[in-house]
Amino acid sequence: MTDIARLRDFVAETARLVASTTSEAVLLAALAPKLEELVAHDDWLPEAYAVADGGRYRQYLLYADPLERFSIVSFVWGPGQGTPIHDHRVWGLVGVLRGEELSVSHARQPDGTLHAAPPERLRAGQTAAVSPQIGDIHAISNGLADRSSISIHVYGGNIGRIRRAVYDSETGTAKDFISGYSNDTVPNLWPDRGAA
Amino acid sequence: MTDIARLRDFVAETARLVASTTSEAVLLAALAPKLEELVAHDDWLPEAYAVADGGRYRQYLLYADPLERFSIVSFVWGPGQGTPIHDHRVWGLVGVLRGEELSVSHARQPDGTLHAAPPERLRAGQTAAVSPQIGDIHAISNGLADRSSISIHVYGGNIGRIRRAVYDSETGTAKDFISGYSNDTVPNLWPDRGAA
Ligand SMILES: [Fe+3]
Ligand SMILES: [Fe+3]
Ligand SMILES: [Mg+2]
Repeated sequence: MTDIARLRDFVAETARLVASTTSEAVLLAALAPKLEELVAHDDWLPEAYAVADGGRYRQYLLYADPLERFSIVSFVWGPGQGTPIHDHRVWGLVGVLRGEELSVSHARQPDGTLHAAPPERLRAGQTAAVSPQIGDIHAISNGLADRSSISIHVYGGNIGRIRRAVYDSETGTAKDFISGYSNDTVPNLWPDRGAA
Repeated sequence: MTDIARLRDFVAETARLVASTTSEAVLLAALAPKLEELVAHDDWLPEAYAVADGGRYRQYLLYADPLERFSIVSFVWGPGQGTPIHDHRVWGLVGVLRGEELSVSHARQPDGTLHAAPPERLRAGQTAAVSPQIGDIHAISNGLADRSSISIHVYGGNIGRIRRAVYDSETGTAKDFISGYSNDTVPNLWPDRGAA
């Protein structure tokens, strides 16, 4: 199996799992190995969703459930690019497809400031989880200085449309944001032409 | 409400209805007015899915359920273009968005030949249904000689991947076919960029 079939199978698997349980722990435990399988092969992401932008990281929607129960996004980090400190408000799984990603988790202190944990380096094929239950505030950046990195993220909602927050690293002050998406079209998971 | 929001709402409505009933009759009765509403406004279909081809009609996937319970397709008929006689094997609803469509229903006779009903003309805003229960064999063509027509179809399966049949109009002989789709990308139903 190559190409888009891997993404297609992962979308279907996610849809089945999301419909099958209301337990975040059960879901993440079942979905993480599926995401690991997806990012174990770098032969399926269409080129249009792998393109870095000179200015800012890109977030390409690959699939969103029409009832907004989950979404799957390709994050493309050019050299030196990364997110502000932000939260999610829903569960999320991150899998590195290409290159490396640096993740810094933040814990909110009683006085509202943020405490940064040591950076964690995720290499291609590795996954990590976030959620309001297990720790929801982090910043992610490209772990490589000389080329692009790509990670595939799955969320328990339509992440590009969720009103959530970015945080000031000094003061911990939260500011509303809605991330949106970088793309107007998403992959057809069944691109085969007819065989009449 | 304008633009892609109409399609987005229709996809969500279809997903909800398909999950809510196993009765084809109940589903079609509930979904037909939603499709009528969708095709009552010609301001939402992205141009890429409205382009006619000089040679043959186009079938652009707009959305397919990852579990293949339904699909939504834009059919674009250039002048003089139409389908062969074919079946579907699942329920289908047709709504004309732009121009006019001619539909000829066929009934299979005991000797295997097909009996054609008088052509029916569907105008923009009108809908019709097909299914193995209510009549599944027809041919559709552009009802206008001088310009393109576009109809939006919804099916109770992933129509581009279903093994079904085309029929010889003289003998009624069935031949397997899989229609496929004409496009590699489908609309992002949430195309808004971020608002940080
Ligand atoms: Fe994040
Ligand atoms: Fe048809
Ligand atoms: Mg209008």
